Amino acid sequence: MTNPTAALLIIGNEVLSGRTRDANLQYLATRLGELGIPLREARVIPDVPETIVAAVNELRARHDHLFTTGGIGPTHDDITSECVAAAFGVPWSLHEETRVLMAADYAQRTPPVEFNAARLRMAKLPQGAVPIRCALTSAPGFSIGNVHVMAGVPRIMQAMFEALAPNLAGGAPVVSRTVHAVGVYEGTIADALSAIQARFPALDIGSYPFYRRHDERGFHGGGVALVCKGTSPPQADAAAAEITAMLRALGAEPVEGEPPPTA
Amino acid sequence: MTNPTAALLIIGNEVLSGRTRDANLQYLATRLGELGIPLREARVIPDVPETIVAAVNELRARHDHLFTTGGIGPTHDDITSECVAAAFGVPWSLHEETRVLMAADYAQRTPPVEFNAARLRMAKLPQGAVPIRCALTSAPGFSIGNVHVMAGVPRIMQAMFEALAPNLAGGAPVVSRTVHAVGVYEGTIADALSAIQARFPALDIGSYPFYRRHDERGFHGGGVALVCKGTSPPQADAAAAEITAMLRALGAEPVEGEPPPTA
Repeated sequence: MTNPTAALLIIGNEVLSGRTRDANLQYLATRLGELGIPLREARVIPDVPETIVAAVNELRARHDHLFTTGGIGPTHDDITSECVAAAFGVPWSLHEETRVLMAADYAQRTPPVEFNAARLRMAKLPQGAVPIRCALTSAPGFSIGNVHVMAGVPRIMQAMFEALAPNLAGGAPVVSRTVHAVGVYEGTIADALSAIQARFPALDIGSYPFYRRHDERGFHGGGVALVCKGTSPPQADAAAAEITAMLRALGAEPVEGEPPPTA
Repeated sequence: MTNPTAALLIIGNEVLSGRTRDANLQYLATRLGELGIPLREARVIPDVPETIVAAVNELRARHDHLFTTGGIGPTHDDITSECVAAAFGVPWSLHEETRVLMAADYAQRTPPVEFNAARLRMAKLPQGAVPIRCALTSAPGFSIGNVHVMAGVPRIMQAMFEALAPNLAGGAPVVSRTVHAVGVYEGTIADALSAIQARFPALDIGSYPFYRRHDERGFHGGGVALVCKGTSPPQADAAAAEITAMLRALGAEPVEGEPPPTA
């Protein structure tokens, strides 16, 4: 059985300008792997309506799930919600249940917060959308079709995702086995590794050089991390065992597991 | 005069799986802004040939420059170079000058490194490509047309980019002015900020809430960072001054500049 797939759309000028370093991709990639909905593509795009609409429509057609982060606040540059409505060709209108919840939240603050026009925009959703609520804010994310719209602030995004996660139909979890070897160059093992990949076509086997400067245990130098990923734990184990044997035959001392070993 | 634009293609299963947190987007976004070649889109894609070829062709057509990171090492999952050749419809063949430089590098190591078939792949380039060399490795990146192919390891990527940067025809640098205000909610200032954005259509004005837990000076709480970006320093200054005045009128104590102020 093949797994459902996901794409991520990171919406925000601040990531493209370098002001903000995105933290949501890694969180979602990890969690989606655990849920068996591997992330297959991510895009970072600016706060430009036609760009958002086109990307939403392209990615929701191509993947089982599309997640978006960013652009659902109250300011002029928060245009994700209305753009998703445009992408689906549905009205963007006040969601009465959400308005009531937000009004109650603002009224009970000390001092009370004014529920002004800007904040009211956060109670507008594409028609047919289902709110994603979390404890950190009364302004919701939402799902419409296979598109899940979340905040950009990482702790709010994470709370929204975890509220949504139980409702996502996943597949077999993606598991990972990592073998590290210090003092081994990628170029030395490339052919042997390629042969192992060929024997395990259902796995993604990746090779990642690492280099560490004087860590807490005094290690300084490089090596390679070899990662076997897939939905079959026995296959991942078997491939990792073959990699370990291959490295030992070269005279290396491979270590399985995170974090990278230190000498 | 409009600025040239850039796109970034981050190639690698390890970013999409969450194993590796990308560090190249923020570096390139910042440097490209300084060079006046603002980054307009970034994509993270897996090590799948047809996906790489399609993304290279789409993004090189749409932007003045396309930068890629990742996938130029010696292992089976390093397929960027041959995919770029396929995207351009040119042969992928041994670059003799690069072969000679790599052979000399490997021969002078202690102990000498074998220039095997896997390493020889790193001396193959799309026909017509110009190598991007740096001091950290004899295996080069390369430029072909408006596509610039660089390593994924951040310190090597940075060295390659800085070797390339003097040859990039840029535009007016993108400048940024940031005003922070502690204790101010986005929803309170949204309308006033929108009016300022309307008076400075050539700028991108962004609003970014922040929240800090007990920093070194004991600050705990939230606020908003308001960022004015554009290629006109006087306009950015003028917009930042209007934002500062708007915040003062609300009774806040805005502070210009990075990092966010602490109370």
